[in-house]
Amino acid sequence: MTAALSQVDRLAAIEEIKIVKARYFRGVDGKDEALLREVFADDVELDYRGAATDPVTGFNASADATEEIQRGGDHCARLVANSLTGVVSVHHASVPEIEIIDASHARGIWPMVDRLLFPQGSAMREMIGYGHYRETYIKERGQWRILSMKLTRLRMDFVPAAERSSTEV
Amino acid sequence: MTAALSQVDRLAAIEEIKIVKARYFRGVDGKDEALLREVFADDVELDYRGAATDPVTGFNASADATEEIQRGGDHCARLVANSLTGVVSVHHASVPEIEIIDASHARGIWPMVDRLLFPQGSAMREMIGYGHYRETYIKERGQWRILSMKLTRLRMDFVPAAERSSTEV
Amino acid sequence: MTAALSQVDRLAAIEEIKIVKARYFRGVDGKDEALLREVFADDVELDYRGAATDPVTGFNASADATEEIQRGGDHCARLVANSLTGVVSVHHASVPEIEIIDASHARGIWPMVDRLLFPQGSAMREMIGYGHYRETYIKERGQWRILSMKLTRLRMDFVPAAERSSTEV
Repeated sequence: MTAALSQVDRLAAIEEIKIVKARYFRGVDGKDEALLREVFADDVELDYRGAATDPVTGFNASADATEEIQRGGDHCARLVANSLTGVVSVHHASVPEIEIIDASHARGIWPMVDRLLFPQGSAMREMIGYGHYRETYIKERGQWRILSMKLTRLRMDFVPAAERSSTEV
Repeated sequence: MTAALSQVDRLAAIEEIKIVKARYFRGVDGKDEALLREVFADDVELDYRGAATDPVTGFNASADATEEIQRGGDHCARLVANSLTGVVSVHHASVPEIEIIDASHARGIWPMVDRLLFPQGSAMREMIGYGHYRETYIKERGQWRILSMKLTRLRMDFVPAAERSSTEV
Repeated sequence: MTAALSQVDRLAAIEEIKIVKARYFRGVDGKDEALLREVFADDVELDYRGAATDPVTGFNASADATEEIQRGGDHCARLVANSLTGVVSVHHASVPEIEIIDASHARGIWPMVDRLLFPQGSAMREMIGYGHYRETYIKERGQWRILSMKLTRLRMDFVPAAERSSTEV
């Protein structure tokens, strides 16, 4: 069914997957649809359900596309690239746990923080979220790509526009 | 005394140790005693002395278990899992320096930020700390585990409860 | 012209470069000129132009050495080590994209956040910046070193001294 991987091929796969995730973050923060399309598998599934709700307080910041699982490389690349129009986003990851299952399948857990700075005139100045991505990967057309992504939250902070800093008028 | 490691075995050991640290963080933030027990060596030593004091101002936030070195896998797993009851914690690492000494010994330096959100009714809303872990690792029962951990601080921020955000009632 | 690298040598080079960057950050935050000198190539070029300006608001926090490209290992190590006197800095990276070009050349992209806490009496309490380093590396005297570094920004936050927290008197 699947080819056994050598130790070095396994390590190379882990590094490739880390770079795929780095490019995903760069695609999101750069609103780069072409780059996002490359990192997503054709049958990618993005599950952001509940990812705009603070698990500590139950406060929900949004009721948009995050309510349903999103499917398909073209659709998801377009959705993610356009979902943050006017928003300055910064996504940072901490150290991941990546497990290579076989030569073309893998899974991983990524701790993350995302910071969304909303445009002038928004009721909310900023959202800062902490959580984990649980992902699967597939090697498709010679490259590792994200096949599924589920985002869970530890905590979310919402900063009202009234707290906008004096240097940001 | 010790077997020389091949280049590929050395790289595999580095990646395994990164995953051990990732699981440590996931164990801390998930209050998962079983997971913490796995990442700790039987003779682990945790040195959090001074880790609740801001080196910039000298402000000390706590005078608890961090005053003594903690020893032993069972004790430390239980202590860490229970030390943050009611607290939402987020620990993130930056890029580490891991050095493999031989087939079963290694050391590493990890930059980190930890964010502790205290429960309603606490005098302090939040503590955000920046610093480094200096660690040693041992391969025990076929797995790399944390043998010692010393946490030092660059800076700590303490946020009084009065600054609790309006979205966090 | 250049020797082809084996897969394992390529992976080892990537890990070495990550450690070089980790040491760069530790050198900056520790104001350690000797450590910085080691991670810089003799002909290093640091391009921090525009790195003190928030691209969101256009606010510019500083008009100092960041106005010109800085050149040379000795000069840059001294400059970086001394540029943050009295400032508590914390630099954290997220997951990088490192590409090995040949046995002695590489390039990389690093997402980062830097936090500068200014001393008492400064008009500004704190600067928090988000952006990317785009770097090249060269293997010189047997070690990978940073040959060029260009810092771009996604966002910068400036916190006036008036917002200094009550615990930091």
